[in-house]
Amino acid sequence: MNENSLFIRACKRQETERTPVWIMRQAGRYLPEYRAIREKHDFLTMCKTPELASEVTVQPIDIIKTDAAILFSDILVIPEAMGMNLDIIESQGPVFDSPIRSAKAIENLNIEGVVERLNYVMEAVKMTKEKLAGRVPLIGFSGSPWTLACYMVEGKGSKNFDIIKSFIYNEPAAAHRLLQILADSIIEYLNAKIRAGCDAVQIFDTWASILSPSDFEEFSLKYIRYICENLETGGAPVIVFAKGVSSYAKLAELKCDSLGVDWTKEIGTVRKEINGTKALQGNMDPTVLFAPKQKIREETERVLESYGTGAGHVFNLGHGILPKTPVENTQYFVECVKELSAKYHA
Amino acid sequence: MNENSLFIRACKRQETERTPVWIMRQAGRYLPEYRAIREKHDFLTMCKTPELASEVTVQPIDIIKTDAAILFSDILVIPEAMGMNLDIIESQGPVFDSPIRSAKAIENLNIEGVVERLNYVMEAVKMTKEKLAGRVPLIGFSGSPWTLACYMVEGKGSKNFDIIKSFIYNEPAAAHRLLQILADSIIEYLNAKIRAGCDAVQIFDTWASILSPSDFEEFSLKYIRYICENLETGGAPVIVFAKGVSSYAKLAELKCDSLGVDWTKEIGTVRKEINGTKALQGNMDPTVLFAPKQKIREETERVLESYGTGAGHVFNLGHGILPKTPVENTQYFVECVKELSAKYHA
Repeated sequence: MNENSLFIRACKRQETERTPVWIMRQAGRYLPEYRAIREKHDFLTMCKTPELASEVTVQPIDIIKTDAAILFSDILVIPEAMGMNLDIIESQGPVFDSPIRSAKAIENLNIEGVVERLNYVMEAVKMTKEKLAGRVPLIGFSGSPWTLACYMVEGKGSKNFDIIKSFIYNEPAAAHRLLQILADSIIEYLNAKIRAGCDAVQIFDTWASILSPSDFEEFSLKYIRYICENLETGGAPVIVFAKGVSSYAKLAELKCDSLGVDWTKEIGTVRKEINGTKALQGNMDPTVLFAPKQKIREETERVLESYGTGAGHVFNLGHGILPKTPVENTQYFVECVKELSAKYHA
Repeated sequence: MNENSLFIRACKRQETERTPVWIMRQAGRYLPEYRAIREKHDFLTMCKTPELASEVTVQPIDIIKTDAAILFSDILVIPEAMGMNLDIIESQGPVFDSPIRSAKAIENLNIEGVVERLNYVMEAVKMTKEKLAGRVPLIGFSGSPWTLACYMVEGKGSKNFDIIKSFIYNEPAAAHRLLQILADSIIEYLNAKIRAGCDAVQIFDTWASILSPSDFEEFSLKYIRYICENLETGGAPVIVFAKGVSSYAKLAELKCDSLGVDWTKEIGTVRKEINGTKALQGNMDPTVLFAPKQKIREETERVLESYGTGAGHVFNLGHGILPKTPVENTQYFVECVKELSAKYHA
């Protein structure tokens, strides 16, 4: 049944009667129902408890009525399963108390049995699928090797990313070793998620945005390409979201189905650039959800019009929904996409 | 004499025997000679004391041997001269203790006599010109109206800029009033700098990077265009640096001479996009200066090669130099540009 869902069909550039919509970080802090659970449990405990993770994953399907669910989790569960001590404070972001700063630290990572230690994620997938009962497809996700490496080496969020950049320039062999280890684990991890029941997977490369085109090719895209070529998808669409890239030409050559687009681009311009060879996902500015309803409606229409008519558009924000976003505006946004998009599929 | 300098000629797309180079934030914390002065005076005092501002402005000419000087100052001296209490802590960034959150707060800005209260900047320009004694041209700068408004409304740096975005979406008339006030002050301010002796001016739109293309047009580019059309340059080149924009087509229509390019773009691709109608300034990743010398040399060559042969390239980093950058690497980078660029001007 999910194979015929609007979301899966749009990812595969098949015709749909309207544009499907979901929201990055839709299971999150802007929802009072999420905060009620979060007050009682810390963030990592929620990730590691399938009952809780599945519950918050399903919340936006009931409340916001999006066309796909995305498993509540965090991209940093992989380095955590490799033995790095992770502390996630939602207001400050993640912190590793012993970041990687040497080749030796990479060799000390516990890379055997990572996916077995992440079995709690697979249990959460299965429990979520039961709760969804076929209503909408379930997306699983991973960070890209580059984006995971940024956190593992910097140890926390960064303004200038000079620590990870110094590392890749001064110790390129060690950096490539780390990226390859991550790529191999990500393949196993996403394959396991698909086997557990995920209907699609998305690779988040948030920190693509800090790389020059040549460094992006060498330190990020190379490993995303390797992952895409080695996934056993069984037909599940693969979505790649490389935030902040200036060109989509090389991304369009990936063995994937859909590309995420951040809000600083014209989605119609990207569609032309890649000649419609991939579905596109995006790309309204998340802060528009703080605007009056009339502006939300206008911006929704603007993005739909920019993409234009025909198949291959999955509506989303251009980045994750922000914590203080009004729920009512989020609901209205989803209604607008559903109502306004039909005419682009006439 | 400065009219015949490499920098001014390159800004005007006139032939030069090699590519000129300067560095954004070249008068700054990475230099021990700067830190020695900074230890004795707070940041704003340095901006407001022509003797000190001119001294640190000239330092990189002697130490790094760049082809242009840029006046030591801060973009936020304009809102400070409008009566907003500013605290600049270099490790944390600027803080306004009473940010603008209403139309009324805008009306309370002291917009008469702003440039008179900024006379210390003009004195610093004159003193710097004496110290430079014609060796290299002097660049004056301003933030764009949008970038200044971001700081004035957010009150400090921001991760998501949801306060300024909420403001422009919910109170567009007030936002436009603020942007127009700033644009008018910036015109007066840059004109006064040119009259005081600046040989070129640059407009920094750092936070162009957070806007969708349509919001960039409405809330930023419109006012940059107005400034460019109303400057009395007397032939001084005007450089516009809009960081993070996805398209240069509209920037290429500005009444300006040169466009800054951040490091996430291929500068050669931008040159083609605008059909060589403006000089381009940029664009090496600032973190490359943390790399071994061989990598610095290779990346310098890569940027030169991307731009290609002929006039109209001013070498720079793609953003400001970072505080911990090794001085030796910075000197080597400038040497590399000087040595390697000659063959692109054969």
